[in-house]
Amino acid sequence: MKKIDLFSKDEKISASEEKEVKSRRDFFKKAAQLSVGTVTAATILGPVEIKADDPAILEEQPWATTLGDPVTKNRYGLPSLYEHNNIRRNMKLLQSGNWQASIAMCPIHESMGIITPNGLFFSRAHGGVAQIDPNKHRLMIHGLVEKPIVLTMDELKRYPSVTRTHFIECPANGGPEWRGPQFNSAQFAKGMMSCAEWTGVYLKTILKDIGLKPNAKWMLAEGGDSSHMGRTIPIDKVLDDAMIVWGQNGEALRPEQGYPIRLLLPGWEGNLCVKWLARLEFSDKPWYAKEETAKYTALKPSGKAIQHFYALEVNSIITSPCPEKPWTDIKKGQLVEIEGLAWSGMGTIKGVDITFDGGKNWVKAELKGLVLPKAWTRFSYIYKYEGKPLLLGSRAYDDAGHIQPTVKQEREAMGVESVYHRNAIHTWEVTAKGEVNNVQVLS
Amino acid sequence: MKKIDLFSKDEKISASEEKEVKSRRDFFKKAAQLSVGTVTAATILGPVEIKADDPAILEEQPWATTLGDPVTKNRYGLPSLYEHNNIRRNMKLLQSGNWQASIAMCPIHESMGIITPNGLFFSRAHGGVAQIDPNKHRLMIHGLVEKPIVLTMDELKRYPSVTRTHFIECPANGGPEWRGPQFNSAQFAKGMMSCAEWTGVYLKTILKDIGLKPNAKWMLAEGGDSSHMGRTIPIDKVLDDAMIVWGQNGEALRPEQGYPIRLLLPGWEGNLCVKWLARLEFSDKPWYAKEETAKYTALKPSGKAIQHFYALEVNSIITSPCPEKPWTDIKKGQLVEIEGLAWSGMGTIKGVDITFDGGKNWVKAELKGLVLPKAWTRFSYIYKYEGKPLLLGSRAYDDAGHIQPTVKQEREAMGVESVYHRNAIHTWEVTAKGEVNNVQVLS
Repeated sequence: MKKIDLFSKDEKISASEEKEVKSRRDFFKKAAQLSVGTVTAATILGPVEIKADDPAILEEQPWATTLGDPVTKNRYGLPSLYEHNNIRRNMKLLQSGNWQASIAMCPIHESMGIITPNGLFFSRAHGGVAQIDPNKHRLMIHGLVEKPIVLTMDELKRYPSVTRTHFIECPANGGPEWRGPQFNSAQFAKGMMSCAEWTGVYLKTILKDIGLKPNAKWMLAEGGDSSHMGRTIPIDKVLDDAMIVWGQNGEALRPEQGYPIRLLLPGWEGNLCVKWLARLEFSDKPWYAKEETAKYTALKPSGKAIQHFYALEVNSIITSPCPEKPWTDIKKGQLVEIEGLAWSGMGTIKGVDITFDGGKNWVKAELKGLVLPKAWTRFSYIYKYEGKPLLLGSRAYDDAGHIQPTVKQEREAMGVESVYHRNAIHTWEVTAKGEVNNVQVLS
Repeated sequence: MKKIDLFSKDEKISASEEKEVKSRRDFFKKAAQLSVGTVTAATILGPVEIKADDPAILEEQPWATTLGDPVTKNRYGLPSLYEHNNIRRNMKLLQSGNWQASIAMCPIHESMGIITPNGLFFSRAHGGVAQIDPNKHRLMIHGLVEKPIVLTMDELKRYPSVTRTHFIECPANGGPEWRGPQFNSAQFAKGMMSCAEWTGVYLKTILKDIGLKPNAKWMLAEGGDSSHMGRTIPIDKVLDDAMIVWGQNGEALRPEQGYPIRLLLPGWEGNLCVKWLARLEFSDKPWYAKEETAKYTALKPSGKAIQHFYALEVNSIITSPCPEKPWTDIKKGQLVEIEGLAWSGMGTIKGVDITFDGGKNWVKAELKGLVLPKAWTRFSYIYKYEGKPLLLGSRAYDDAGHIQPTVKQEREAMGVESVYHRNAIHTWEVTAKGEVNNVQVLS
């Protein structure tokens, strides 16, 4: 464990000053008299006159003298009103021009750990968020299976369930920035993703029950919403870890995530994880549906497009600092924690490197908390802030041998027309004042 | 993997019937015509006349033909309106008679995985739920430390953070049932607990920074709400895994959990994890505060009370079936998944046994998903339902060598006056009709 000394000397109370602290009441009184903002220990407890028994003190903090809310005022609880800025924000897509075919961006700069709370989970919809009555919804499984079935939600949930923690990411995450930075914001640059604990049934469990015909090589997944999103999945993925999920972080899937059920293909493009799932059909050929021809194909420099584009590459972003969380209040010589998220649709994060000079030199970050396959993985590096300009970037690698490319390497391979699957090293410029800007290092 | 056959023969479509399925439109049409309830595949697709090209079909499901909601209609998302029954419910405490000093019970029967969503997290308050302005809140750390400090929330959060998944449980969970069953409900019998991913700072990290004096043996934790909950913690726990947390499942702590900060003592009584935390004082003696003398002590048959009562014992409960989730719709011969939660404040769950005859015979359940120390651990057993009466119970054991006692063993040790720390084997009676009742097996 590194020695931590986050507070400069003049912010600390000396041992001799401490004897003046006569009671907690003084603390409340003096704290309450101070204006909002950064208050140092010395300011609160240093020069002030201590009156240990002033009875008027506690009234100054209203919550210390009056009863709070009944514990079940909210039978379904909500965040503190002081957290009103921690919300999803809308990225209206240029090509559609409406709020139904749009994206609710996750505030990844405010994220902690690896769970995204359901209220902040990113959402992309093609025909708006359907509000489906689960009692009327059915799942049909047919085509090249021995026993086609149509299931009610109650019937589906009788299958033995599994719970897995996985990220879901739109393959267009970062897609607006193939030619250069567009957003001075972590939320808009990389917020088309989130991570949750999902509960549902493995498709292989159902297929073992109803029987898959030997010539079944592809599965069509189709949504019951008005967009009828249809995507073709190769059978190997179906029989590996594909799930039908109805649970998200311990409760029913949210409407924005496809309530009552969605397909989950761990590590694969979010749009393949069809929401409001209504139909699975098995065939010996792929379908080439609208959303896998007109969209979700990646144009290469050769003029040819990648059509069957599935697993998301290893990727990472620093979330602290970032444009929304600058270092403008950090003093020279203070230690500060650099934090970020790494993920790979192809395996488990094995490590993350940090650069302070745009990729010339690298140091090893620490992975913290749970490290799970195809899940967000948080990394950390304790840094002594010196108030110098930085080009701060992160480079993740996974246990399948993948590592993030530089912007130059990515452009050489994919050009700038792909829209999808950007995973080049992301760089923040940190100015001498601690401001943070979105930049790209082209070398 | 066991062979799963959850649907009896007459509920399945034969392969020959499947050729009548001409399009998904028929599926939607016929599904929509059926009334709510259990609908078998044979009923939907068997005898009905198929008209493949009826244009009126899709209109019958409104969400299939009309745009849904804008994706950022809710910048902070909410559950589906159809989930209105998955809520916390109030247990009004007899001795207090008001809604502020009460308990919001977690719907554990609806839980999935090991994460409780923040909106459903159980909550106990002594003076109501304080709504604290984080800009005005301070944390004082003083007493036997080298450098006493008063921290703003921004300053506190500059310490390097850690993220850990732990349950929090009120020691009175199940406490009303020392003399026998009181609630025909899993939510009311064992819902004074939940489990989340917590983010904050280890107290040992702060103490390394400010210096702990050698004679510091106890820590007082005090809340800034109107109840000023005060509890004394031995220094060994403080220096082991005690945290000050500000994050809960990837967002700010909820007001009911002590926003902006609470103490977290993994595995120890929930009331020790002081909410709305405002002050930590170190001393060479314990405090004997109100809430550790008048309350939260356990009266033994000898007439003496256990006063310093900390870690929660190994425990478990079956959540499916339960009174809220009976087996009345399960048919004889069907396989059904028995599920439940196990937890120990003293270590990691090592295994769970299931009994069908009130403890005479036991079989081994499977632990599923993540198995983490001092966290909810989910167990599962695939059972062939025969429609016979059962006395269904679970018995968990942890890696520290603890195992749940029988009711008889627990009463011999603790009598029935303890109120706190009940962890005897919990039994559900399953009737021949599949109804489920809360009972106690006294042998």
